[in-house]
Amino acid sequence: MSSSFGQIFKISTFGESHGAGIGVVVDGVPSGIELFREDIQKELDRRRPGQSLMTTKRSEADQVEILSGVFRNTTTGAPIGLLIRNKDTDSSKYDAIEDLYRPGHADYTYDKKYALRDHRGGGRSSGRETACRVAAGAIARKMLKLKGIDILAATIQVQDVYAQKWLDDEIENNSIRTADPDVAEEMANRVKAAMRNADSVGGVLECRVKGLPVGLGEPLYDKLDAMLAHAMFSIGTVRGLTFGNGFEASGLLGSENNDAMEGGSFASNRCGGILGGLSNGMPIIMKIAIKPTPSIATYQATIDKSGQDQKIRVEGRHDPCICPRAVPVVEAMTALVLADAILLNKCQNW
Amino acid sequence: MSSSFGQIFKISTFGESHGAGIGVVVDGVPSGIELFREDIQKELDRRRPGQSLMTTKRSEADQVEILSGVFRNTTTGAPIGLLIRNKDTDSSKYDAIEDLYRPGHADYTYDKKYALRDHRGGGRSSGRETACRVAAGAIARKMLKLKGIDILAATIQVQDVYAQKWLDDEIENNSIRTADPDVAEEMANRVKAAMRNADSVGGVLECRVKGLPVGLGEPLYDKLDAMLAHAMFSIGTVRGLTFGNGFEASGLLGSENNDAMEGGSFASNRCGGILGGLSNGMPIIMKIAIKPTPSIATYQATIDKSGQDQKIRVEGRHDPCICPRAVPVVEAMTALVLADAILLNKCQNW
Amino acid sequence: MSSSFGQIFKISTFGESHGAGIGVVVDGVPSGIELFREDIQKELDRRRPGQSLMTTKRSEADQVEILSGVFRNTTTGAPIGLLIRNKDTDSSKYDAIEDLYRPGHADYTYDKKYALRDHRGGGRSSGRETACRVAAGAIARKMLKLKGIDILAATIQVQDVYAQKWLDDEIENNSIRTADPDVAEEMANRVKAAMRNADSVGGVLECRVKGLPVGLGEPLYDKLDAMLAHAMFSIGTVRGLTFGNGFEASGLLGSENNDAMEGGSFASNRCGGILGGLSNGMPIIMKIAIKPTPSIATYQATIDKSGQDQKIRVEGRHDPCICPRAVPVVEAMTALVLADAILLNKCQNW
Amino acid sequence: MSSSFGQIFKISTFGESHGAGIGVVVDGVPSGIELFREDIQKELDRRRPGQSLMTTKRSEADQVEILSGVFRNTTTGAPIGLLIRNKDTDSSKYDAIEDLYRPGHADYTYDKKYALRDHRGGGRSSGRETACRVAAGAIARKMLKLKGIDILAATIQVQDVYAQKWLDDEIENNSIRTADPDVAEEMANRVKAAMRNADSVGGVLECRVKGLPVGLGEPLYDKLDAMLAHAMFSIGTVRGLTFGNGFEASGLLGSENNDAMEGGSFASNRCGGILGGLSNGMPIIMKIAIKPTPSIATYQATIDKSGQDQKIRVEGRHDPCICPRAVPVVEAMTALVLADAILLNKCQNW
Repeated sequence: MSSSFGQIFKISTFGESHGAGIGVVVDGVPSGIELFREDIQKELDRRRPGQSLMTTKRSEADQVEILSGVFRNTTTGAPIGLLIRNKDTDSSKYDAIEDLYRPGHADYTYDKKYALRDHRGGGRSSGRETACRVAAGAIARKMLKLKGIDILAATIQVQDVYAQKWLDDEIENNSIRTADPDVAEEMANRVKAAMRNADSVGGVLECRVKGLPVGLGEPLYDKLDAMLAHAMFSIGTVRGLTFGNGFEASGLLGSENNDAMEGGSFASNRCGGILGGLSNGMPIIMKIAIKPTPSIATYQATIDKSGQDQKIRVEGRHDPCICPRAVPVVEAMTALVLADAILLNKCQNW
Repeated sequence: MSSSFGQIFKISTFGESHGAGIGVVVDGVPSGIELFREDIQKELDRRRPGQSLMTTKRSEADQVEILSGVFRNTTTGAPIGLLIRNKDTDSSKYDAIEDLYRPGHADYTYDKKYALRDHRGGGRSSGRETACRVAAGAIARKMLKLKGIDILAATIQVQDVYAQKWLDDEIENNSIRTADPDVAEEMANRVKAAMRNADSVGGVLECRVKGLPVGLGEPLYDKLDAMLAHAMFSIGTVRGLTFGNGFEASGLLGSENNDAMEGGSFASNRCGGILGGLSNGMPIIMKIAIKPTPSIATYQATIDKSGQDQKIRVEGRHDPCICPRAVPVVEAMTALVLADAILLNKCQNW
Repeated sequence: MSSSFGQIFKISTFGESHGAGIGVVVDGVPSGIELFREDIQKELDRRRPGQSLMTTKRSEADQVEILSGVFRNTTTGAPIGLLIRNKDTDSSKYDAIEDLYRPGHADYTYDKKYALRDHRGGGRSSGRETACRVAAGAIARKMLKLKGIDILAATIQVQDVYAQKWLDDEIENNSIRTADPDVAEEMANRVKAAMRNADSVGGVLECRVKGLPVGLGEPLYDKLDAMLAHAMFSIGTVRGLTFGNGFEASGLLGSENNDAMEGGSFASNRCGGILGGLSNGMPIIMKIAIKPTPSIATYQATIDKSGQDQKIRVEGRHDPCICPRAVPVVEAMTALVLADAILLNKCQNW
Repeated sequence: MSSSFGQIFKISTFGESHGAGIGVVVDGVPSGIELFREDIQKELDRRRPGQSLMTTKRSEADQVEILSGVFRNTTTGAPIGLLIRNKDTDSSKYDAIEDLYRPGHADYTYDKKYALRDHRGGGRSSGRETACRVAAGAIARKMLKLKGIDILAATIQVQDVYAQKWLDDEIENNSIRTADPDVAEEMANRVKAAMRNADSVGGVLECRVKGLPVGLGEPLYDKLDAMLAHAMFSIGTVRGLTFGNGFEASGLLGSENNDAMEGGSFASNRCGGILGGLSNGMPIIMKIAIKPTPSIATYQATIDKSGQDQKIRVEGRHDPCICPRAVPVVEAMTALVLADAILLNKCQNW
């Protein structure tokens, strides 16, 4: 497996959904950054299950322990070890489907690759691992904030309901984490309807980054957009990604799509803040397609380990729409990429 | 900069648009693969400029020289050095715009990051570098073919013209490289119209991979889709990427989106061939948004190095639509990712 | 910091001497390897402090917990998280020397690099971190044993006492871990004498690896000897390293030094099992210079943070000769390099 | 293979002894460094064959061409491609020994690993590759010099002749590159005697680095000594390495070995300039064991590809003592490690 991400600011995660716990080693954090356990916990609280009716009923307090790398509430430059114990690991629901492949899940592909698999709650392929990303990302976010860089993601689509506006301050005020309060309830209703039908719904997130300096990213192969794309598609539920006007650019003329410059800066931001793989000082704008949660309690056709046709109903405790909990994950991965890009950029000067 | 890509099958490229030449070191190629210069040249010929009216008039033969790593037409396991000399480097057109930032280009961001920049033809940020990717990718493609793996990309949209069907054998029969011969002429007309207006157009490519075994990819952070995304967004002109049904999944219910299994395999391929970050044996399907070529001979607003407002007209010799020449680049980057994934997957067995 | 090692079989460690605990994420372990907690614990027991009079009196049970990656006593291919809680962390002895730089230690250099430093017991630079290497190395050793590869290190010199023979089975029978039982007592006496004088002694280890296949190592830059050297010098106490006849070769003629071949194999092993950076099927022979433990309770001249001259006496609890406890560390690092080399070598075949 | 070295300042080399040429891509060089072809050529001239009677008679001008990354004699931040064409490639001498394994060479191990091998002049395993290291190292040296860092290596032992003093300015004044002019002739005589007997001799190099700041190196696994060791043992001819007093430390007491501090700095330098894996501001001192050149024109026992016993006499054109030509290679590898360490160290500040 490849359980690490980043070049200088580097994380290595471990843990399964129903094992002893999950954790992450965050290496490359410069010394001298003030860091409290609460800085990390508050981000984990945004991601943790059981926040509302719309998220899985698994009740994990997700209390993080800082094992190393922080002395007197300050980073020392040493790797920061973070541990989150699993508490509410009811694996009984998984016994019945140990030999079945859940549609839309990694069960079949993991079985073929690794021959052996911890089937309980998806094991290593569980979304639970994203808590480690959020914990590590919290450190990166704190560092970015010191430089005036803000990352904000929100749900902009749930099934067929689209946000029409973006109000930063509204995102945490509704359970779906949309920046458009006018559609929050309608979005929530789509989720509840899916729940009632033992089904799930997909959506789209947008992520915005403000305050970036010009020149972050390492062309040609570690362009800032390439690294962000790597990060986004490393999240299990992501199906598509665009920067700026994305697929809309495909339908435009060059004269319509280019961002002109005037008064020392850019007159528009169709490119979404990245030019030639480097940040251009404008906000980064990403849109991220989130698929409907594959775990549904409706009967679906599948096969078992021996290749026989079977029917499966995934009971467990699952999010009918993962969008609100994906918001902090997208933010965290963005923060990890940006912290790494800033550190790498320092190597440009002799 | 970061001019290398891949972990085991690894490339390191160098070269500028108007320098002495461009090249690539391909390391990690196993020994014993039959390889002729012509295997590489034929792929370069598909990418090289001057193939039709629709592509840049720069006339580069792009003759590749194999400098190392091949003995008696067989790879030895040693790194393969490839060199392509630049021939037709008319830099005079660039003198006038040395201090201006071309809209949609990396000029501004490179200047801010590196302070100094080879402005001639875009220097390092030029699309010319993609010839190195195609050359290296040709080796990967030959290796993949030995395992029955085929990669095929085509143009499926030009401005507002969409392909409606996909015929493998038609792609190389039209100058736009679409798999739908019925719209090829209409697509070409859009390109010609833009050309006449000193403008350019964008489009969309689709890339299909058949014959993959199950289990390629290294979760969690080097998932197959994450690596492909990294590769695709490392191509300068790419603005969006989806796998399978992409953003369409965002509007579906879980019961509509999951790919059921029956008869030992998958009943559908909405996921686009990747589950849990691993290939699932179905074809990989990617859609890639290509922006309109930013170099246009129409006057645009920009600024110069001192920050003063200016007008710029990019003369040079440019592709009014980069889609047909992006096809072999997308295929090459896909091949590099897959060859690497196959080699990494060997490390799963003890 | 750079707290990870290895390319495919990869470790990431964390933890300080007097913090909450130390640990390691071991990634890249193939699935299907039988693994019990006891496999790891027994190696840790060989390294842990307090084994004899000659080692530090710090009493750490060093009980390891497997947090992930193992299911039903078998590796799953997922990263293996290992945690060792610190128990006996008496930091009081370090209060007095918080602002002093211990000679021979990393105190001064860490302070200059990181500005801030966890001074308790050396913090991150403590030899305690090697427990993580031993724990990870235990997994690698078990894997290597499945392939008939044995690693054995022993003390061959303590101060001016030299081993004259090598009996595999004697190493664990004496507290100094020498393979020559005839000098074991004399070596131990040197250590005891140093102890009595509040001093310490250095020594030399030899490490032998048998059963390796031909061809391990990745030339040119990741030659097997280069990787082993990287590993050995990553151990804080190592000052020198040779392969085979080492510096003796410098005094020989080519005709005296070359290993002739006959009967299908090598007639001698002056090269120490590695030719051209690749294992040649003969035993690997390394000799490793170990410096005397720098922590001594004798007064030494040093400076404090403000640059003033001071006297320091390092009390704490320290090993008067680190050789016996360095033996399992050297074996572990060797095992990590070899497991990685075997996995990388699989990428040589298509 | 693994033909790249370095993390930020990164080289990727290619080429065989008797192929079209050899070369290197140097990536990660910051922009704005003045660089002339002559800066590189003059270092290559120090390494190139045919400088004196004592070195191989192969006559390679080793003219380097800068293919990219330099614009108006200044680095641009883009990768610097360097090419050296092979000219005097007389492979005829190798025809007779195509199926024989030269003792002390990589022939046997490469054949087992890669199945196929370019036997002409050792192919990829030839010392000729080190020209690429010297070329890349020349760039690093120039950069280090801007920071007042000097690297100087010299021969301190040839067979049984030992240098007794070190005069910086004498090194380039004698063909053996020793810093002790009093033994230069005697050393040269040892080499000539070996030559007359169709034999070769080994020796020892010392490398000294002055002017380093405190704190270079990335503990725990990329300690400065670990990186230097990796670099040194990646040179084919190296058999041993020590820092500071090396194996001598093994015989000392802690009180004898520790470097006390006074007056704000170190009172001695037994540790050789590195403490806890970080530079401590004192000169780095390495000693490097060089084996006698394995290519000798005396008959030796060996086997052929089919495993049959054979006699071999290696004619070709070989250095009877590689020490003087190893001097610039050791310096170059040291420079590469230090340039990388300085760049990585910049990531310690936020």
